[in-house]
Amino acid sequence: MTTTLRLGIAGLGTVGTGVVRIVQRHAALLAGRTGREITISAVSARTRDKDRGVRLQGYEWEDDPVALARRDDVDVFVELMGGSDGPAKAAVEAALGLGKDVVTANKAMLAIHGQALAEQAEARGAALRFEAAVAGGIPVVKALTEGLAGNEITRVMGVMNGTCNYILTRMEDAELPYDEVFEEARALGYLEADPTLDVGGIDAGHKLALLASIAFGTQVDFGAMKLEGIERISIDDIRQAADMGYRIKLLGVAQMTGRGLMQRMSPCLVPADSPLGQLEDAMNMVVLEGDSVGQIVLRGAGAGEGPTASAVMSDIVDIARGTRLSTFGKPAASLSPVEKATTSTPAPYYLRMTLEDKPGALAKIATALGAEGISIDRMRQYGHEDKTAPVLIVTHRTARPALDAALQGMAETGVIVGEPVALRIESV
Amino acid sequence: MTTTLRLGIAGLGTVGTGVVRIVQRHAALLAGRTGREITISAVSARTRDKDRGVRLQGYEWEDDPVALARRDDVDVFVELMGGSDGPAKAAVEAALGLGKDVVTANKAMLAIHGQALAEQAEARGAALRFEAAVAGGIPVVKALTEGLAGNEITRVMGVMNGTCNYILTRMEDAELPYDEVFEEARALGYLEADPTLDVGGIDAGHKLALLASIAFGTQVDFGAMKLEGIERISIDDIRQAADMGYRIKLLGVAQMTGRGLMQRMSPCLVPADSPLGQLEDAMNMVVLEGDSVGQIVLRGAGAGEGPTASAVMSDIVDIARGTRLSTFGKPAASLSPVEKATTSTPAPYYLRMTLEDKPGALAKIATALGAEGISIDRMRQYGHEDKTAPVLIVTHRTARPALDAALQGMAETGVIVGEPVALRIESV
Repeated sequence: MTTTLRLGIAGLGTVGTGVVRIVQRHAALLAGRTGREITISAVSARTRDKDRGVRLQGYEWEDDPVALARRDDVDVFVELMGGSDGPAKAAVEAALGLGKDVVTANKAMLAIHGQALAEQAEARGAALRFEAAVAGGIPVVKALTEGLAGNEITRVMGVMNGTCNYILTRMEDAELPYDEVFEEARALGYLEADPTLDVGGIDAGHKLALLASIAFGTQVDFGAMKLEGIERISIDDIRQAADMGYRIKLLGVAQMTGRGLMQRMSPCLVPADSPLGQLEDAMNMVVLEGDSVGQIVLRGAGAGEGPTASAVMSDIVDIARGTRLSTFGKPAASLSPVEKATTSTPAPYYLRMTLEDKPGALAKIATALGAEGISIDRMRQYGHEDKTAPVLIVTHRTARPALDAALQGMAETGVIVGEPVALRIESV
Repeated sequence: MTTTLRLGIAGLGTVGTGVVRIVQRHAALLAGRTGREITISAVSARTRDKDRGVRLQGYEWEDDPVALARRDDVDVFVELMGGSDGPAKAAVEAALGLGKDVVTANKAMLAIHGQALAEQAEARGAALRFEAAVAGGIPVVKALTEGLAGNEITRVMGVMNGTCNYILTRMEDAELPYDEVFEEARALGYLEADPTLDVGGIDAGHKLALLASIAFGTQVDFGAMKLEGIERISIDDIRQAADMGYRIKLLGVAQMTGRGLMQRMSPCLVPADSPLGQLEDAMNMVVLEGDSVGQIVLRGAGAGEGPTASAVMSDIVDIARGTRLSTFGKPAASLSPVEKATTSTPAPYYLRMTLEDKPGALAKIATALGAEGISIDRMRQYGHEDKTAPVLIVTHRTARPALDAALQGMAETGVIVGEPVALRIESV
């Protein structure tokens, strides 16, 4: 335990250079806390000749991350390349195959291959750690896996895509439409090359799938997640929600129901005065609920060099200290396959739709809801535009299948223009 | 690692029975997560014949906690008796002396004897863990020691006494004076037998001293803490603060300054729209700031059976999993003695005082401030009562010694009735 811990870092983007910087700047601090020196043996990235604003002299260079993972002078392989397959996965497999510990920030890879990689890690006695893959600098993987290990986890919620939260709060603050703020976010470099990863909820969904596995002892199953993005949220929705004391968030919820595991990432209404409702800009927040602890709320930066590198370092420090944990909190072989809940717990819903402005239209909508046993908490028809009438409805608590049936019934009335927006009102 | 981990639990109050309940209810869950069975061998408490609503049959009983700590069938001694000295300390020392791991929720004992106990633990190769001693169910010791281990910690802040936060928010919500809410809190059983522990900031100060040690690699030094309670906060202060967009919190701040470690627990003004400002009722919140991670906010229940027992269990699970950590995050021998900062960083201050209602009184006060180079951001003289005039002043950023000198100068003018209230406005 007093020998040097030697890192090989694959990927020298924002996070990779951030890790290099911490290892260099805090060598003494880290040695004091772990009882051993932490050094970097070698690095790897796509392009070698590029000024990254960090000193790389003295580190060996590998063009091939797999070769880096296999180096004899690398004890811990730090994978910060990204991509669910390809070189990242190949290199991680190479490292685990040799029994080397792996630290990664790669949510996509783990959301899809997490079970297989965890099994490989455990078969070889290696660690596979991923604090940085979920909610950036917030130590939520640790909080859930270790801090709340005495609890039966009842629910995990989170706003875990800073870009979406930026877009939604910016729309509200500046009273701007979605498209305009989306372009702003793109210009600011907040969006992934494929923006669907952000605004479609996929990136946040990957993170939620990882937390759900730890929380409920199930195999990571991103395919079982219900995904809905923020693309259809209008400034009208945001205003109407605010009027009623709510804010709209791209909210992930994982919950074990009597009928299996529900995992969904979707825009929801949450009370404006709740911690989730108060979350501004690109911040992330995770809410953990356990049978003993009640509700724990964690808030912090979900991305960026410093926060993400901080999370990578926490895994490295754990390894340096000799801490050994199963990847998802219990042996991979003991994780059960996800039994997917087909429906969420009942909740009130917010509905917005545009009706043709003719007599009886609203009555037909109300009838369609009533036919499914859904009662209306409030209904509002507001400012007419052309020949149409925007209508807002908040239902009492209802099951989602009943709501879907009612939406089907509404569509069949022929009085609705376009597609209604239906948002769950989550009790947080 | 596959053998049973056997607990001895000393203290069967709220937290102790909570731990018993979790061990019983979640035996399978805990075994799944740790790979071993966790059982209770023996328990100890002041009175044996008392219905605690939990099954104790099958556990050996010890009248003497020291005898419990020494039992051969106890691997981990769980100290939940409380008290900084006496039986709790004697029993913990007995356990550590035999090289047994100890889990405790005893903030007073650790705030005073933490360094000596950590040294004893490390000398014997035993663990001494205390997640439950700070902020109840919030896994803040873990977040700071492990989750943020790659950071130089720049500041730790916290609202860590739920009773004080209850009193302050209740005063505001119900517009009730301090004395009345204090009696309410007493009737609700929220106050310690010696209420000064709560409202004097001592209990919260103990917690802050523990976090400061981890954050800054210093020996726990409760004696070096500046302590100020909430006893002098009036409903007027709360209203005036609210008018200016602030709320008053009993806030702990630990910060390494150029001139040593500042630790203080005192009522402060914080922005009403900050996470700390929004904290309601008996909730706790800890804010951790690091050079890489930025600001992390943790919120949860700071007391109560479930939350505190959850924290105790997280330490027990860590031990069961084989995780070994120094008590304060690095070897006790390497912790440096506290070099106590004699002054806080400069800040704006809120001042409230009552002046004799005669010409020139206000001018004398303004002159006393000006004499120390303190400029006034705003000043307000409001509603007269009898022959006196309440005055509110917010200063620009100033050093505390200058403020103290100005307060001295004001006192010498002879126009102040009673003692002024001076509260720091903390930038959070």
